[in-house]
Amino acid sequence: MGSRGGSGGDGAESHGYAADIHSIREAQARIAPYVHKTPVLSSTSIDAIVGKQLFFKCECFQKAGAFKIRGASNSIFALDDDEASKGVVTHSSGNHAAAVALAAKLRGIPAYIVIPRNAPACKVDNVKRYGGHIIWSDVSIESRESVAKRVQEETGAILVHPFNNKNTISGQGTVSLELLEEVPEIDTIIVPISGGGLISGVALAAKAINPSIRILAAEPKGADDSAQSKAAGKIITLPSTNTIADGLRAFLGDLTWPVVRDLVDDIIVVDDNAIVDAMKMCYEMLKVAVEPSGAIGLAAALSDEFKQSSAWHESSKIGIIVSGGNVDLGVLWESLYKQIPLV
Amino acid sequence: MGSRGGSGGDGAESHGYAADIHSIREAQARIAPYVHKTPVLSSTSIDAIVGKQLFFKCECFQKAGAFKIRGASNSIFALDDDEASKGVVTHSSGNHAAAVALAAKLRGIPAYIVIPRNAPACKVDNVKRYGGHIIWSDVSIESRESVAKRVQEETGAILVHPFNNKNTISGQGTVSLELLEEVPEIDTIIVPISGGGLISGVALAAKAINPSIRILAAEPKGADDSAQSKAAGKIITLPSTNTIADGLRAFLGDLTWPVVRDLVDDIIVVDDNAIVDAMKMCYEMLKVAVEPSGAIGLAAALSDEFKQSSAWHESSKIGIIVSGGNVDLGVLWESLYKQIPLV
Repeated sequence: MGSRGGSGGDGAESHGYAADIHSIREAQARIAPYVHKTPVLSSTSIDAIVGKQLFFKCECFQKAGAFKIRGASNSIFALDDDEASKGVVTHSSGNHAAAVALAAKLRGIPAYIVIPRNAPACKVDNVKRYGGHIIWSDVSIESRESVAKRVQEETGAILVHPFNNKNTISGQGTVSLELLEEVPEIDTIIVPISGGGLISGVALAAKAINPSIRILAAEPKGADDSAQSKAAGKIITLPSTNTIADGLRAFLGDLTWPVVRDLVDDIIVVDDNAIVDAMKMCYEMLKVAVEPSGAIGLAAALSDEFKQSSAWHESSKIGIIVSGGNVDLGVLWESLYKQIPLV
Repeated sequence: MGSRGGSGGDGAESHGYAADIHSIREAQARIAPYVHKTPVLSSTSIDAIVGKQLFFKCECFQKAGAFKIRGASNSIFALDDDEASKGVVTHSSGNHAAAVALAAKLRGIPAYIVIPRNAPACKVDNVKRYGGHIIWSDVSIESRESVAKRVQEETGAILVHPFNNKNTISGQGTVSLELLEEVPEIDTIIVPISGGGLISGVALAAKAINPSIRILAAEPKGADDSAQSKAAGKIITLPSTNTIADGLRAFLGDLTWPVVRDLVDDIIVVDDNAIVDAMKMCYEMLKVAVEPSGAIGLAAALSDEFKQSSAWHESSKIGIIVSGGNVDLGVLWESLYKQIPLV
């Protein structure tokens, strides 16, 4: 595990982070008509295996199948009518893309989604289902960004960033509010980490409500830039990533890094086999379809790294953020039973 | 569809049925410490396909993966200490067996589960997980019953019937109470039908709360004894059954038949392909692992038979009882993508 954050115990307000408990509560009120309040599930069988009480916040049941609609709808409904009139644009090809398409549809404005030509059909279908305008780009991030920039210039659409944005972070933080409203006695929350939008929102809300709540990140070994960043004390990016957790390949941004640096107590790194085992446990014991990125919190809870840490001994009731459920059934089955890569 | 029940509109009390709203409310209080209050999920994507608002009562998230723990725990905790001391016995090899094993474990008494030698390994594992004593029998129902009878005589254990029993029916009826507490505006409930314990409890509770609520049964074509019984006006049994819905192969009992006859408004019969399609939709859109018997309510909601009925035109908000989620992932995948039988 990485080193402990410096200010984990003294709350999250007035440190100049991009969001705070007030912007998160404001987001909760703003997005309430557009998102599901997702259920918290538990399984005594899983608890017996882990040896702790786990509370699974199931964002796989969220609209568009992932937590992303929270940040996307908060960003899009925070726009004034003039700003919104030209529409919005993003260049994610994953859950954020579908969420932006859906939130724009709910607001009644156009969404331009830049998608690389090699994107999986099911993700493209999700964007189409919500009426997003698809603009194809080449595979490289440079091509995606330059196409998005061109769309912005041509249409006047506003960019909705997947994580490095106050309104996005505030929207994602509403997961934390709901979880702690339902199970206030939680002492630890394990959150998947990628660009850091979700964990920043979750940490800012949870530490403001109760500064003693421990925030642990779960990160795939093949994209462990956050763990490296925590160890180095600065943002580290990687030349490439390699993990089945396709939602966890982004790097931290300048707005999420300070929160991760200060308020995330530790980062647990797990390998793809552990993620697949956790997906299988979610299916068989929790009866929930979970994508690799969504299962990583359980994988972290089951890991030796966690069990050998002081956090393990100090944890009793652990919230697990199950971030999304968008995985093709055949692909899931093949990865579970044939141990071939998911993507 | 079968003919409409005669007394669907005048409530469910004082007709001399095995259970009533009072025994169901009593069950709710008795079993509260031992069961999950399961979430009700909805999906705007599925609603758009069906053309109605659906509310999925997800008993796949129930303890032991199915609604059966409700009836089993009500039966077992209703025993006085003297009755309970010798333990309980049942000869189901399905979800009821695991539920009896779990409820007995919670009460701290032995459970003797008679299982035919050809039972699937995963179902045997579920019984073992909850500490049930397994007694093997031959495959025939006669062998299973005679072994169970011998166990009763040798141990003094009390038989916990899977459906034809007041306490079982009352326990299953608590599904209906929870669903209508959460979504009181529901006008129609679709319930899987097998021995009739679940639908009897659901119908008795719902019609007592609001006599105008429509109760529809969903039954597999290869085990359509209930539809035949409704048409004939008496209990019909079949020489054999053939359906992937392994939880829906039992026939009505003398306590469940009167309720089905009088309070179930119609029976929708669907074939196995429709069940598999519904399982796939549950996985992909609802993100929930559902066994064939649990998906049949959605299959019925999607059926032409329903859409051509008067019930369709009179329904607006439909509760779907997703009865269980115990299906092997590999088996599910194979049935979905290779169209081979599940069992």
